[in-house]
Amino acid sequence: MKDKFNEETLERKEIYNGAIIDVCIDSVELPNGKTAKRELVFHNGAVGILAITPMNRIVLVRQYRKAIEKSILEIPAGKIEKNETDPLETAKRELEEETYYQCDRMEQVADFVTSPGFCNERMVLFQAHGIKRVENPLPRDEDEFLDIVELSLEEAKEHIRLGDICDAKTLYAILLWEFQMK
Amino acid sequence: MKDKFNEETLERKEIYNGAIIDVCIDSVELPNGKTAKRELVFHNGAVGILAITPMNRIVLVRQYRKAIEKSILEIPAGKIEKNETDPLETAKRELEEETYYQCDRMEQVADFVTSPGFCNERMVLFQAHGIKRVENPLPRDEDEFLDIVELSLEEAKEHIRLGDICDAKTLYAILLWEFQMK
Repeated sequence: MKDKFNEETLERKEIYNGAIIDVCIDSVELPNGKTAKRELVFHNGAVGILAITPMNRIVLVRQYRKAIEKSILEIPAGKIEKNETDPLETAKRELEEETYYQCDRMEQVADFVTSPGFCNERMVLFQAHGIKRVENPLPRDEDEFLDIVELSLEEAKEHIRLGDICDAKTLYAILLWEFQMK
Repeated sequence: MKDKFNEETLERKEIYNGAIIDVCIDSVELPNGKTAKRELVFHNGAVGILAITPMNRIVLVRQYRKAIEKSILEIPAGKIEKNETDPLETAKRELEEETYYQCDRMEQVADFVTSPGFCNERMVLFQAHGIKRVENPLPRDEDEFLDIVELSLEEAKEHIRLGDICDAKTLYAILLWEFQMK
């Protein structure tokens, strides 16, 4: 069935082809026959992992985010690499690389686009069940600087108030964790 | 206190300066003295509104999203315009423009960055309390094509399974709504 709101591409202009994002400007035909511009960012997608320790603490990583010029606490996460076809594999790899944990089982708990108004980035959220520390974990990416932090729900909420837990996937994961405990 | 993970900008190259986004490539100095590139997208920020009718249905709008080439159901939302300093004002305006509802009170329920790995877009989520239809609502943006849809929680969950409710702010809002009813 044709989407009645469909915007047909009349012309696509590639502005930037990068390591993380591609940027294009499309001229589109609107449903009323008029034309409009669409500024678009393309991204290969990412995963995030909600991991709760046996002590009922959420596993977070602190890292610097240049786009907002501060370091923040996020659930472990990472881009889906071009050679990875299953987000589950990305999730297992990132959990181990970033936090030195492995898990018995990864359960998919959400799947969303982060900002559909201009970007196609998809984020698949997993919950890691039965996590345990690895003795010889996968090496981190070169030049990846991060601290591992484990927080109770109340501590996590305090960091939300303070503003250094502040990204969509992490707020979603914390709300889901609280929901599961309710 | 200096952020120990701070990445100092050595050089910024502007790639694109658009209506919705600006794109820059920064060369940064890492904590270990090495340099790296950062692909960055700058956005003026946006709001989303969780609005529940007296019949306990969530108010959504269907619109086409060129970045993912399909129309999806989202909570009412919109960009913070350059002349708007208070996200609350944006939320009131967007609720009325997109859904023809006004409310007695807007409560801020979340504040997050959508994708901090490369983008500074901030999303402020509000919950509209006491919504009622407006007789002569604010006009919509020119060339804005959308349908208003009101769903029960179970219907909303079915649309999540079908994949046409699939964006971060809307999934967060629906989880919060379910949390409040639990």
